[in-house]
Amino acid sequence: MHISQLFLPEVTDAIERGDLQSLRAVFEDLHPSDVAELVHNLSSERVAAVIRLLRFPKGIDVFEQLDLQMQADVLKHLGRIETVNILEELSPDDRVDLLQKLPDQTIESLLPLMAQAERDEVKKLIRYGENTAGALMTTEYAHLPAHIDVSEALDLLRKGAPDTETIYYIYITDSERRLIGALSLRELVLARPTEKIENIMSKDPISVPVDMDQEEVVQKFGKYDFIAIPVVDRDQRLVGIVTHDDAFDVAVEEQTEDVQQLGAVVPLDEPYFQASFWKLAQKRGLWLMLLFVGEFFTGTALRHYHETLENAFTLIYFVPLIVSSGGNAGSQSVTLITRALAVGDVKMRDFIRVLRREAGMGIVLGVFLGVIGFVRAMMWDSGYNISLSIGVALVGVVLTGSLVGSLLPIIFKKMGFDPAIMSSPFVASLLDGIGIVIYFNVAMRLL
Amino acid sequence: MHISQLFLPEVTDAIERGDLQSLRAVFEDLHPSDVAELVHNLSSERVAAVIRLLRFPKGIDVFEQLDLQMQADVLKHLGRIETVNILEELSPDDRVDLLQKLPDQTIESLLPLMAQAERDEVKKLIRYGENTAGALMTTEYAHLPAHIDVSEALDLLRKGAPDTETIYYIYITDSERRLIGALSLRELVLARPTEKIENIMSKDPISVPVDMDQEEVVQKFGKYDFIAIPVVDRDQRLVGIVTHDDAFDVAVEEQTEDVQQLGAVVPLDEPYFQASFWKLAQKRGLWLMLLFVGEFFTGTALRHYHETLENAFTLIYFVPLIVSSGGNAGSQSVTLITRALAVGDVKMRDFIRVLRREAGMGIVLGVFLGVIGFVRAMMWDSGYNISLSIGVALVGVVLTGSLVGSLLPIIFKKMGFDPAIMSSPFVASLLDGIGIVIYFNVAMRLL
Repeated sequence: MHISQLFLPEVTDAIERGDLQSLRAVFEDLHPSDVAELVHNLSSERVAAVIRLLRFPKGIDVFEQLDLQMQADVLKHLGRIETVNILEELSPDDRVDLLQKLPDQTIESLLPLMAQAERDEVKKLIRYGENTAGALMTTEYAHLPAHIDVSEALDLLRKGAPDTETIYYIYITDSERRLIGALSLRELVLARPTEKIENIMSKDPISVPVDMDQEEVVQKFGKYDFIAIPVVDRDQRLVGIVTHDDAFDVAVEEQTEDVQQLGAVVPLDEPYFQASFWKLAQKRGLWLMLLFVGEFFTGTALRHYHETLENAFTLIYFVPLIVSSGGNAGSQSVTLITRALAVGDVKMRDFIRVLRREAGMGIVLGVFLGVIGFVRAMMWDSGYNISLSIGVALVGVVLTGSLVGSLLPIIFKKMGFDPAIMSSPFVASLLDGIGIVIYFNVAMRLL
Repeated sequence: MHISQLFLPEVTDAIERGDLQSLRAVFEDLHPSDVAELVHNLSSERVAAVIRLLRFPKGIDVFEQLDLQMQADVLKHLGRIETVNILEELSPDDRVDLLQKLPDQTIESLLPLMAQAERDEVKKLIRYGENTAGALMTTEYAHLPAHIDVSEALDLLRKGAPDTETIYYIYITDSERRLIGALSLRELVLARPTEKIENIMSKDPISVPVDMDQEEVVQKFGKYDFIAIPVVDRDQRLVGIVTHDDAFDVAVEEQTEDVQQLGAVVPLDEPYFQASFWKLAQKRGLWLMLLFVGEFFTGTALRHYHETLENAFTLIYFVPLIVSSGGNAGSQSVTLITRALAVGDVKMRDFIRVLRREAGMGIVLGVFLGVIGFVRAMMWDSGYNISLSIGVALVGVVLTGSLVGSLLPIIFKKMGFDPAIMSSPFVASLLDGIGIVIYFNVAMRLL
């Protein structure tokens, strides 16, 4: 299954013996992604040696599959000319991503060595905001005028093909490069050679504006099953395309970010084992400390009710039960709503609908747990009044949990923040404090 | 941006007035995905009317974009012949998915009406286990023999094209249908017309076995940037292809499932607002109850230490602080490891490496929080011994949290379960109880 694992001993062996010939033989037969996987645990110096060893264009193909940090590290071990050769062969979007990883003075020293066309491309792409369609797109796409016929179109494509990232969707532009149509290679191949492009293209194709957030661009791919989607500027001029494989990678990255935030970790931006120990400790420690300080409030709340507590000591045994139920209901809501916002199932205008639904849900679930809690307390001989306090407090706590957990992500999104930073431990911590206030207020009234 | 929202008032209006003509006019101009989005909040009876209204093949295209439950509901309002017409036009994988949603007797009554070829296809596909490559693949792909030349190949493709889901990758098979090569439409279009296929195809293309788990199939797409991947049986015979759009949908679905499980919700399998209130209440209530019952243990643990508690009452104010820190560290670890397992960053063989890393992390983070906790307790005049107990307990609790949170998902995966069911609230609950045991044992020793 894992073809690269089979080769690992051979490869390590060959590298240690400095046996470049057999190394090259092994690599030439593998898919570039497999070679990249094989070498990704080696030092960047060794990876640079491997890239140099492989014949053009295999070396470039492997380089493209390395992750960004490794690419940047590998360049340090290559000469300026080699670096420029690689940069020129990369697709424009990958090239800009890589350049943004390099120190400013390195960029300054490399740019003059690049061809004018590539240099202009870099300057154009580097302008677009991070996480927008513009930053994600490539500028190497197939485009044709509308007035030519199918056989002329195929000729043009054959000439331009080495430079385009995909020719499966072909975009039709007018004399001012405005997007007026689209055509799949499949339709083109199946059409009569003398047919005019304007007669077989689909008009007004779906496109995205260059400043659209990449998360929204990814949602379009989920909806329309495209291989690529065209990107236009404010005047409807075609400026690039986003391809399905980049959209796929972004979908996975954004998802990883959301999951990590929901679990109260500042997003790692790199695989688990590649993140350095101290960087990871920082990213986790920051959140742990915030949550820890948040819990001071819970302690203060408990202390505030010490009189009630001294009079009815049994109450203390149910504190974990009650506060964690609020936190759990809150975690459920925050997870459901954050995910629904991310995939577009819930929109900002659904605010009231979410509120109503979660209020109903909180009451139903609260009564359900309240009854179990009441019975459990009675079985522990806690007395009727204490048992009733516990039951009633559970309804209040679970209801509050559902409401807080569902509204916080929506409010945060409205304020322009990422809704996923309302992590489930954060909501749980918040509800620990609120839960104690609710619990003791109910108890003071009923005892 | 949301083209379909612009049309919504018009559409609702036309439906209420029964104005089918203007409805058809609006829909004919829209992308099928947009029509599906527009109608997805209507009753299934109305959607059936819309499908009937649209001319072939638009009606089918819209039907394909509805979610599975809506498809099944719509069929109830269509006649048997209409149903069979739709079923025959669906791609084989979508057809099987839909049939599996229908009651057995409906399938029995429909199968005899379908053409022999489609019927055989259904029987073949329905055999494959859920969530495998076989269940995800389509059997309509482009395949060619190796000995013909490029122009013959293009002719064959033109003839077969209406029945294939994608022709951008073409698979080359021998006389026994074994997969021996692959070719992109791009390469074919760019090649000389007289060139033999066997000379331009790439040999031994990457493929997946028919019983591979769909999550692994999706990982291949992330790695290789394919538009489609071929699926082979045990004898290397080509049996189907998985296309990029289906892989994308599965990636999003699997991610949603993981997130919901991590947040302690039994996966919904449908968008937030489409899940019925009571079904959702059940899926949340089940987990809440389990976690609730789990917290009984925490209460029992607290009760167990009532003597210590009565002697040093101040200890109680730090219970929420200490137990929640363990839960938070555990949530972080469970999130990081579950996600890393899902995307393949951490493999099962990394068990020991994870253990070492998380142990180190737990100690570093525990000491960090322990120092803050000690200072905080001193500031609250809790006395040196109590403050020290709190500091030491925090180290133990955070360390335990990191270890439990990281090991549970790995152990669960090893046992063949989904690692994501070790939800972050579950780990937090477990650590509430453990946290109290650690805290009071430390306190009893130090006081």
